[in-house]
Amino acid sequence: MHSHHISLAFLNPVRYGPQYQMELDTNSEAGMRAVQIREFGGPEVVQVRDLPEPVPAAAELLVEVARCGVNFADSLLRENGYIASATLPIIPGGEVVGRTPDGRRVAAMIQNGGYAEKAVVPEAHAFPVPDELDDVEAVALLAQGLTAWWLVNRTARIQPGESVVVHAAAGGVGSLALQLARLRGAERVIAVASTPEKRDVALSLGADNTIDPAADDLTAELCAANDGAQVDVVLEMTGGRVTDQSLAALAPFGRLALYGMASRIEPEKVSLRALQRRSATISGFWLMHAFTRPEILEKAYAELAALVTAGDLRVIHGGDYPMSEVRRAHEDLRNRQSIGKLVIDPAR
Amino acid sequence: MHSHHISLAFLNPVRYGPQYQMELDTNSEAGMRAVQIREFGGPEVVQVRDLPEPVPAAAELLVEVARCGVNFADSLLRENGYIASATLPIIPGGEVVGRTPDGRRVAAMIQNGGYAEKAVVPEAHAFPVPDELDDVEAVALLAQGLTAWWLVNRTARIQPGESVVVHAAAGGVGSLALQLARLRGAERVIAVASTPEKRDVALSLGADNTIDPAADDLTAELCAANDGAQVDVVLEMTGGRVTDQSLAALAPFGRLALYGMASRIEPEKVSLRALQRRSATISGFWLMHAFTRPEILEKAYAELAALVTAGDLRVIHGGDYPMSEVRRAHEDLRNRQSIGKLVIDPAR
Repeated sequence: MHSHHISLAFLNPVRYGPQYQMELDTNSEAGMRAVQIREFGGPEVVQVRDLPEPVPAAAELLVEVARCGVNFADSLLRENGYIASATLPIIPGGEVVGRTPDGRRVAAMIQNGGYAEKAVVPEAHAFPVPDELDDVEAVALLAQGLTAWWLVNRTARIQPGESVVVHAAAGGVGSLALQLARLRGAERVIAVASTPEKRDVALSLGADNTIDPAADDLTAELCAANDGAQVDVVLEMTGGRVTDQSLAALAPFGRLALYGMASRIEPEKVSLRALQRRSATISGFWLMHAFTRPEILEKAYAELAALVTAGDLRVIHGGDYPMSEVRRAHEDLRNRQSIGKLVIDPAR
Repeated sequence: MHSHHISLAFLNPVRYGPQYQMELDTNSEAGMRAVQIREFGGPEVVQVRDLPEPVPAAAELLVEVARCGVNFADSLLRENGYIASATLPIIPGGEVVGRTPDGRRVAAMIQNGGYAEKAVVPEAHAFPVPDELDDVEAVALLAQGLTAWWLVNRTARIQPGESVVVHAAAGGVGSLALQLARLRGAERVIAVASTPEKRDVALSLGADNTIDPAADDLTAELCAANDGAQVDVVLEMTGGRVTDQSLAALAPFGRLALYGMASRIEPEKVSLRALQRRSATISGFWLMHAFTRPEILEKAYAELAALVTAGDLRVIHGGDYPMSEVRRAHEDLRNRQSIGKLVIDPAR
């Protein structure tokens, strides 16, 4: 039987770490540059400081961070708006790629501590990174790649011949999910994206056609994009009426998987009887739960890395910022102008 | 791409058939005994009459009915209470086993026309029946067996090591689903049934433990029956608070599949955000949709038949009634006293 007591020690670190420390004792401690938030607020609370290096505990690895991924959640963290509330002071940053002291190249997800020259990561969740991958690719395959992989292969379990709708199709998860759906044999991939530029990106990644989510009757648009037929799978992260109208487009045995709610508007609640009338399925997905199955995540990461190496999966590079310009990275992300994976470089 | 235009000609017969005829012309037509409902009402409207034999159209087979399954839906049909409303006059009966004129033994689901000495069935949905199966087994593997198979193997996709809750566990679907879950490698099967007799039946079929659905806090009882852990899969057909409280017992990545609503009480509507917080899945299932995939149903029927033949799957015989006593069969079913599959014998 699987254990369902989620024991993610690293997600709720209680031990004394650098992110909780305010000063570096330059006489006795090895130092590093890191971004530390000491109070909640606007972009100005995100500051680079000198802090002590973290010390790995048992079953943890010290990683010299080559790049750290920048996520929308990081930009919410400084105003304490994310799903899990944070304790200050804190070093943001949940995705790192870098080298261990013995020279192994690894990528890992952590709850925080990534916006730094050094980070500690749990050994069980440090995935080997082949040399063929660049740092942006290595980081993009973490939260976004693993989410896309899980949605396509496990939650929605896309089958050959199916029609698949991918919302936010130029986004971090969407751009990968779109390609993975195609690789699983989806016969039609319908990309939903909010600007002409994003829709062009989706087409360049292999989408068959695209839709603007602002359409009045999204249900009708989705079916029209599928030759008039209802759709088999919807991967959704917008919320509100986009979810409602997508659900209404589901075919018998159709599955809608919700993995985010960017609009922060809740979809309508769903009647099970209505689901039964169409033999339809709705799933929620939150990647944190997947960390109870590290063996699956490791396999997934290796599979994604192999696809990138083979040229079958393309990661969009969104911008490589010096850590000293992390605020600009957050602003670009918040303005939703960016396309592709944003990373910061702690060495700069 | 799958076609999602459900084209089940046989489910909505518009052609002129014996069920719509009131009299047998004894000079020109071959006759048969059949149960025909000419007006909606109580048990007295269910009458055996002499009617013309049906004539198979293209892609249909004539079957000499050995046994016809009796379902709860049949007993609702006479008062027009079922999900699809009926046109009178009509011959009830949706599950037959028998022989074709060339001697092949087949079992088939039809929308109606089964309570008769002869029935026509669509060739694509006439499944071969091995000689080792008795008639009750052959019929029980139709609506109930195929539903149980689909729920376990496709909708919930039970995995080795999982914990599975089966509601109405001594019922037609439940008693088979319980055994199929075990065969798929479920580590714990928790059976919910409303009487001590039914709970004993569930234990005899391999359930690990049993619960009375009348328990005040079904969520707590389900988790207690699973060593305090939340459960991976729930197969539900009761509705109302049984559904609500079962959903609350789902573990991360847990799936609840609803395939009926015996209480006729709708469960609470479900928040997608709540599903996301647990990476949980809810599905509806209605067997009619599966008839768009006859190749899967044929494979499923063959698999179920092989399991029965091998002694790995047990069908509970609920009673073999002469067709002339069909009203008694309906009453026994409506009083919920019966356990196991009820059939009628048109020859008697």
